[in-house]
Amino acid sequence: MFETQTNIKLHDTDAAGVVFFANYFRIAHTAFEAFMKSIGCGVDYMVRSADFLILIVHADADYDRPFQLGDTVSISLKATAIGTTSFVLTYLIRDADGHVRVTVRTAHVAIDKKTGEKIQLPENVRNGIQSISQAT
Amino acid sequence: MFETQTNIKLHDTDAAGVVFFANYFRIAHTAFEAFMKSIGCGVDYMVRSADFLILIVHADADYDRPFQLGDTVSISLKATAIGTTSFVLTYLIRDADGHVRVTVRTAHVAIDKKTGEKIQLPENVRNGIQSISQAT
Amino acid sequence: MFETQTNIKLHDTDAAGVVFFANYFRIAHTAFEAFMKSIGCGVDYMVRSADFLILIVHADADYDRPFQLGDTVSISLKATAIGTTSFVLTYLIRDADGHVRVTVRTAHVAIDKKTGEKIQLPENVRNGIQSISQAT
Amino acid sequence: MFETQTNIKLHDTDAAGVVFFANYFRIAHTAFEAFMKSIGCGVDYMVRSADFLILIVHADADYDRPFQLGDTVSISLKATAIGTTSFVLTYLIRDADGHVRVTVRTAHVAIDKKTGEKIQLPENVRNGIQSISQAT
Repeated sequence: MFETQTNIKLHDTDAAGVVFFANYFRIAHTAFEAFMKSIGCGVDYMVRSADFLILIVHADADYDRPFQLGDTVSISLKATAIGTTSFVLTYLIRDADGHVRVTVRTAHVAIDKKTGEKIQLPENVRNGIQSISQAT
Repeated sequence: MFETQTNIKLHDTDAAGVVFFANYFRIAHTAFEAFMKSIGCGVDYMVRSADFLILIVHADADYDRPFQLGDTVSISLKATAIGTTSFVLTYLIRDADGHVRVTVRTAHVAIDKKTGEKIQLPENVRNGIQSISQAT
Repeated sequence: MFETQTNIKLHDTDAAGVVFFANYFRIAHTAFEAFMKSIGCGVDYMVRSADFLILIVHADADYDRPFQLGDTVSISLKATAIGTTSFVLTYLIRDADGHVRVTVRTAHVAIDKKTGEKIQLPENVRNGIQSISQAT
Repeated sequence: MFETQTNIKLHDTDAAGVVFFANYFRIAHTAFEAFMKSIGCGVDYMVRSADFLILIVHADADYDRPFQLGDTVSISLKATAIGTTSFVLTYLIRDADGHVRVTVRTAHVAIDKKTGEKIQLPENVRNGIQSISQAT
């Protein structure tokens, strides 16, 4: 598992007094960016220099209990499916008491930037994803 | 069906040159807000005055093909499930040629603001949701 | 003057119940994008195809009275300074009663994409900006 | 001075490949929230419990050189004016080499939540602001 922490800022919230539902995807993606950097394949590298991209083809979230302004948040990231060209990540977003309040999932596919065709996951990406596989 | 149109603004996009994946949920929610207003139950009314709220308990999106800066976007909103206390909305986000590029779904539950308990959908909300039911 | 209208969405607001201060710049920029498109120099064209860019080098806002969720907003855009390579736009953000609640200003400079050097405003941009000059 | 660090995430950027101009205000406000918490007057406390609010009445930014996806950013926060009921903060946003690329300023006024009238800065806020005064 890969873990990061953050806290809820004013811009994450809306007039209902809690985090706007779409912003949990942003929070999850920030954890994804930290994870990808940690395995030597930063999103900045992918966007600017690599000949491949790892696209998001699906995303979903289950909202059990909302977070409020100022709340401390921990995000645990694990791989819950790994294929030849794709993988699924699950983000458990926990409060300070360790309770999962929101669960986010993102499904990713590796493609060749020029052709747009699916490609095998690059070796370091596959190894990184496997290192946070639920089974390990 | 309820339909709205918009176009992709610079703030919707990211450095990969396309709409940031979380922002499709924001775009869908803008259509939801317009729909709720059209059936006489605006989100502003719910947040400020009503004794009930309609929470989002689940959201998901399938990304087939991204939108770029300046693209014209139409969003078709329909109800794909209606229960006693809950409903599911599906948003087809189409390009100028009428092709669905992104599909968003949001599941909603009505609750009493004071108790937090689930309640039956208010009459006008139920009628409004039924008016965009896929079956009609 | 160039005018657009919008209304305040849930994602514009924060837990204080009003529009998050940074989001007025986003609202202003949406008006800017509509204006640039109207004069035949869309931001999408500049970002993707043109050999020049019009950068923002300064932005400021005065907040007199906040907007809330659901409020109708009109944005009047005018040019309050025009130079050889630069211009300043002022956005009056009015409520439904016509009162200016927030005033935004953005200062822009035209540059050559390759060299990064300042260049004269392209003819159609200059003409467009002059058409909304305060003096006209 | 009060200092925080962050790095530029994908959602901070836009299709022009750099941070969207409005997002620097969001980045600055995140530093403000961290500072207010550090002096015992968190924004969450103000929004939810306090009988006063500290409003933003003006904001501006000078953009010298943009940040890109993945860039490390340090934000130095200092008070550049302190009045009886108000103060001005300046945020120097520096790159990894210590160069200031963007300068943000925000002007704040303390008000009574019930009456909306200006009030003297609360003692701990005044002391906190003075502790990061430019002159110290």
